[in-house]
Amino acid sequence: MVGVAVIGAGYWGPNLVRNIQATPQFHLKTLCDLDVERAKAVLGRYSTVHATSSLAETLADPLVEAVAIATPAATHLEVALAALESGKHVLVEKPLASSYEDGLKLVTAADERGLTLMLDHTFCYTPVVRRLRQLVQDGELGDIQYVDSVRINLGIVQPDIDVLWDLAPHDLSILDSILPKDVTPVAVAALGTDPHQLGRACVAYISVRLSNDAIAHAHVNWLSPTKIRSTIIGGSRRTAVWNDLDPTQPLAVYDRGVDWSDDPVQRQVSYRVGDMVAPALPTGEALRGVMAEFAGAITEKRVPLTDGRSGLRVLAQLEAASASLAAGGVFVPVNGGSV
Amino acid sequence: MVGVAVIGAGYWGPNLVRNIQATPQFHLKTLCDLDVERAKAVLGRYSTVHATSSLAETLADPLVEAVAIATPAATHLEVALAALESGKHVLVEKPLASSYEDGLKLVTAADERGLTLMLDHTFCYTPVVRRLRQLVQDGELGDIQYVDSVRINLGIVQPDIDVLWDLAPHDLSILDSILPKDVTPVAVAALGTDPHQLGRACVAYISVRLSNDAIAHAHVNWLSPTKIRSTIIGGSRRTAVWNDLDPTQPLAVYDRGVDWSDDPVQRQVSYRVGDMVAPALPTGEALRGVMAEFAGAITEKRVPLTDGRSGLRVLAQLEAASASLAAGGVFVPVNGGSV
Amino acid sequence: MVGVAVIGAGYWGPNLVRNIQATPQFHLKTLCDLDVERAKAVLGRYSTVHATSSLAETLADPLVEAVAIATPAATHLEVALAALESGKHVLVEKPLASSYEDGLKLVTAADERGLTLMLDHTFCYTPVVRRLRQLVQDGELGDIQYVDSVRINLGIVQPDIDVLWDLAPHDLSILDSILPKDVTPVAVAALGTDPHQLGRACVAYISVRLSNDAIAHAHVNWLSPTKIRSTIIGGSRRTAVWNDLDPTQPLAVYDRGVDWSDDPVQRQVSYRVGDMVAPALPTGEALRGVMAEFAGAITEKRVPLTDGRSGLRVLAQLEAASASLAAGGVFVPVNGGSV
Amino acid sequence: MVGVAVIGAGYWGPNLVRNIQATPQFHLKTLCDLDVERAKAVLGRYSTVHATSSLAETLADPLVEAVAIATPAATHLEVALAALESGKHVLVEKPLASSYEDGLKLVTAADERGLTLMLDHTFCYTPVVRRLRQLVQDGELGDIQYVDSVRINLGIVQPDIDVLWDLAPHDLSILDSILPKDVTPVAVAALGTDPHQLGRACVAYISVRLSNDAIAHAHVNWLSPTKIRSTIIGGSRRTAVWNDLDPTQPLAVYDRGVDWSDDPVQRQVSYRVGDMVAPALPTGEALRGVMAEFAGAITEKRVPLTDGRSGLRVLAQLEAASASLAAGGVFVPVNGGSV
Repeated sequence: MVGVAVIGAGYWGPNLVRNIQATPQFHLKTLCDLDVERAKAVLGRYSTVHATSSLAETLADPLVEAVAIATPAATHLEVALAALESGKHVLVEKPLASSYEDGLKLVTAADERGLTLMLDHTFCYTPVVRRLRQLVQDGELGDIQYVDSVRINLGIVQPDIDVLWDLAPHDLSILDSILPKDVTPVAVAALGTDPHQLGRACVAYISVRLSNDAIAHAHVNWLSPTKIRSTIIGGSRRTAVWNDLDPTQPLAVYDRGVDWSDDPVQRQVSYRVGDMVAPALPTGEALRGVMAEFAGAITEKRVPLTDGRSGLRVLAQLEAASASLAAGGVFVPVNGGSV
Repeated sequence: MVGVAVIGAGYWGPNLVRNIQATPQFHLKTLCDLDVERAKAVLGRYSTVHATSSLAETLADPLVEAVAIATPAATHLEVALAALESGKHVLVEKPLASSYEDGLKLVTAADERGLTLMLDHTFCYTPVVRRLRQLVQDGELGDIQYVDSVRINLGIVQPDIDVLWDLAPHDLSILDSILPKDVTPVAVAALGTDPHQLGRACVAYISVRLSNDAIAHAHVNWLSPTKIRSTIIGGSRRTAVWNDLDPTQPLAVYDRGVDWSDDPVQRQVSYRVGDMVAPALPTGEALRGVMAEFAGAITEKRVPLTDGRSGLRVLAQLEAASASLAAGGVFVPVNGGSV
Repeated sequence: MVGVAVIGAGYWGPNLVRNIQATPQFHLKTLCDLDVERAKAVLGRYSTVHATSSLAETLADPLVEAVAIATPAATHLEVALAALESGKHVLVEKPLASSYEDGLKLVTAADERGLTLMLDHTFCYTPVVRRLRQLVQDGELGDIQYVDSVRINLGIVQPDIDVLWDLAPHDLSILDSILPKDVTPVAVAALGTDPHQLGRACVAYISVRLSNDAIAHAHVNWLSPTKIRSTIIGGSRRTAVWNDLDPTQPLAVYDRGVDWSDDPVQRQVSYRVGDMVAPALPTGEALRGVMAEFAGAITEKRVPLTDGRSGLRVLAQLEAASASLAAGGVFVPVNGGSV
Repeated sequence: MVGVAVIGAGYWGPNLVRNIQATPQFHLKTLCDLDVERAKAVLGRYSTVHATSSLAETLADPLVEAVAIATPAATHLEVALAALESGKHVLVEKPLASSYEDGLKLVTAADERGLTLMLDHTFCYTPVVRRLRQLVQDGELGDIQYVDSVRINLGIVQPDIDVLWDLAPHDLSILDSILPKDVTPVAVAALGTDPHQLGRACVAYISVRLSNDAIAHAHVNWLSPTKIRSTIIGGSRRTAVWNDLDPTQPLAVYDRGVDWSDDPVQRQVSYRVGDMVAPALPTGEALRGVMAEFAGAITEKRVPLTDGRSGLRVLAQLEAASASLAAGGVFVPVNGGSV
């Protein structure tokens, strides 16, 4: 068993604690939070896990071989770098860091030490995203023509980041996870509105131009009274529609669409109106799959599905989005040279 | 009773024929289509209405005092101008014309002759849009913070216009109809994708920057296997959500949202989680309301709700959208000087 | 073309008028209603169809070869019998008559004269019911284990019949249409409530025990503020779920269920959790299909799908339901001897 | 703090363990299961709670003042009676016992010793049922005219009880919880089908005739591939519709319905079509509320909301349902004399 510490007992930390405890390959040693009382409260009155407010003590423990970091994004560089420099494997909440530059430092530090650096891109481990990835890879959807996501709810207005940095990492990491290898993000446009004049957008739209000229678009919103979490992946052969709020039938694959004759002179449109199939999917908490992948990557010394580089690719797009937002919505090229 | 002719017996013409026949103030005289057999087929075997292929004959009939035009957009200028010059009142399908310049010619021609020029912005006559207008005017929603529309379906790929010109007029005319007078569109950004390389977008996004810095955004799409027609109007006090595909409960007004203290130093967020109310609304076909308004405007010599100028305002935004699409998605100012 | 008259211009008559006019094999001659002004209003100002208040005149017209009857149920015997005795083919609204005995008179009269007697069991001509019939006949659903219908809405409280006689004919005729030949209704139980003390139930439940021991159950309700129209057909192999209010995807076929080993000693349960398929279905108004079937039965001299005997079978079950209601809910055998 | 033991570590036990641990007034001492390994697995590797296979040891512990029992229904009498005789307060899963007679023994035993005997009728502690109870008590719904529940899913086919005893206790306890005091169940009818010939129904319908002549009806089903959990409470003033699978808006209150003039001679129907209100409701797990009520009843020495007598009332109706099922669906009076 791999000894693990969780760092951060706030919003997401309790989920990490619960899922690490349920993972046979892991032994949870420590829950570390600046506020040790909060850490104790998360563990509850019946736990044998150690609570501490000292990161140094946590990282000094030789029995702790890996850490899962759920602190605010602004602290990721410092905490994760300290962990890597102490020789710990690292699982970190999204986004990887506050900037591409900082993220690159973490990727480099992990590479140099041969340590696992993994992003907790939780949605990538849901049965739906696993199936979507397979549908794309097997050619079931054909060429990807457009991707449209809506992720809106009455949400926690974050004190330090805008709604793009808060919610779009979900959509960008899902996209990263399912796109075929030869289709990559090339430019990003973003626009938003800040009705409460906070200096950061509460409602925003992000558009990612892909290398095949398709657009992946997401609407992210903290102010909506209704909750919607849906993604449409329009393909030349079939189209997949994911409704994350429908637990019994989250994925629908439609054999419906527009076809065009290949004859360059007489281009004719025809409409396909075939069946819809809602595939049976396994159940289970996605975070359990995150932990299994983290444990597998450590013990098998392999690159995890959502490795540090996937986190860097998301950061590159977020930075382009911020640049576009500042520039009035023009498409800004994605920094991808060094990845 | 006002004598009326319908010009165009294609996709929408039959709906005009049916609703004009059901309007007491109107007497339908003629259905005119270049293909007179199509006109006869629309009227059916049991009708006393005259079918003709001659526009000149139709416009020469002194008993025809008004015409309803449902021909392709590219012909609107020619047909509507001929009708106005023959002294007929005109109801025309959206969009008013193929360009702002052409539309202005029609508005000017109607003004000069004191004739009614009205747009068939059908959605503006639905019970939901009437209620939304009232909710905005009465201050029930507070300040408009964002408007988000989704209008997607497996749709008819138009031979001459892109999806923006086909579907966005619905959203732009609805917006025009409900916005308070002191909030106006100032700039438009648009982007789209053309996966079948037709030279025109089949999936597009349009963003309208309003004078109060809010964004009205619409996703229009001909390729989606699922049909969605929804609009969210986010207000500072309440938020309205319209699902046009739910016939029994299309409108929901949420008393949920984010509030902020006005104290400029210590800005505090709080969350309102109040009830949702789905107001009881009258039933009835919107096109019946269009006809009642057209008849009322003619007989009472008043400006109709969706007059030629509302059609011009929509054209100005569509032209800005096309310019933005060509320019890579930047915001393009809306031509509104002369309206 | 077959000359037709419609008798009754009330709630359903206008639909018959419209669909007969759209049926190439028919020529609508006359609309007959005791209130001739109502008949004229239904035809409108632009129609060439004759309106009359005289049934005798209508039936005396030799050009009228068939009649479609949409008068109150209590008058069906008199009107339909007169029509048959005048040598007219008859299409009649459900229920066939006020009693099994009366219905039998109509069936006998039509048989003796070699005339078509057909029930307007409209739902049986929907694409969904056609597909359900096929799914059952092809064995795709396996053995029918249960059928559950919900048909509730804020409905018109009928002045003369209870909610069972008003709404259950839909469910009973659908059942009649899809059941395999070797599975028949054997007994009916019903219970209801009459909260406004009208002397007839406004909310009722009907249970039909089938010859294979399965139960077909329906909840019919005039008082529900929400509208539900759904039917589940549970089969040993697959289960079909029909939501009549979902126009885009009304039918879902689930490959999910419980299986049992056939070993009589060690009976083991297992669960099948396969895909759901929503088959693509043709669109179109069901009443158009009714008219096509009526015309085809007349001209081809064949038994229509929903012939008089199907109407008798429904009446037999309605009478059993009324007897059960009066007897406190016990199962009452279905009168089926003479059919 | 009250020391507690949980007895039974099967399907529901882990939920009891989790919620007792989260309840400040309780201290979880022991988890007892015949299979001690299962108990240990439920507690996990990080727990300080004692696991044992000995009921005697558990009941002999003076620090255990209360027990929560989640063993099969057939064992409730033995286990709960032993606990009561050891002076422990008891929370027991539904149903209270296998028969009304057994249940009465438990109620009597608790009464004699002045101990709390409470049923874990979990749904009664949901925010929706609390609100429904209030709506009924405040007269907001008016007189209850009908109650209709649907509780269907692909469910675990129980080895010893039929679907009525498995699922209907939910609906019966909810009904018990919300009915006004002067409206009581008087008779029960039930019918079901057993397509796999197991000797017990897998699909069943239960109808409860109330003292005001209203009917409460429930459809319970283990074989349905789709999951539905809904309840309609039809009132003379308003109607409440609960969809338990809609987490964001589970309750809708409709001001829609049929009204009748009180004039006994000229009874006129009119239709009310008012707004629908979806009230904002608190969130939170219902089982947390169960534990708060259990703790409160013990420490304040008061009768809990879902006391032993509520469990007896449910048992009386279940027994009547079984008798009706055996007798072919007739209404069977509810045994309520001694409660």
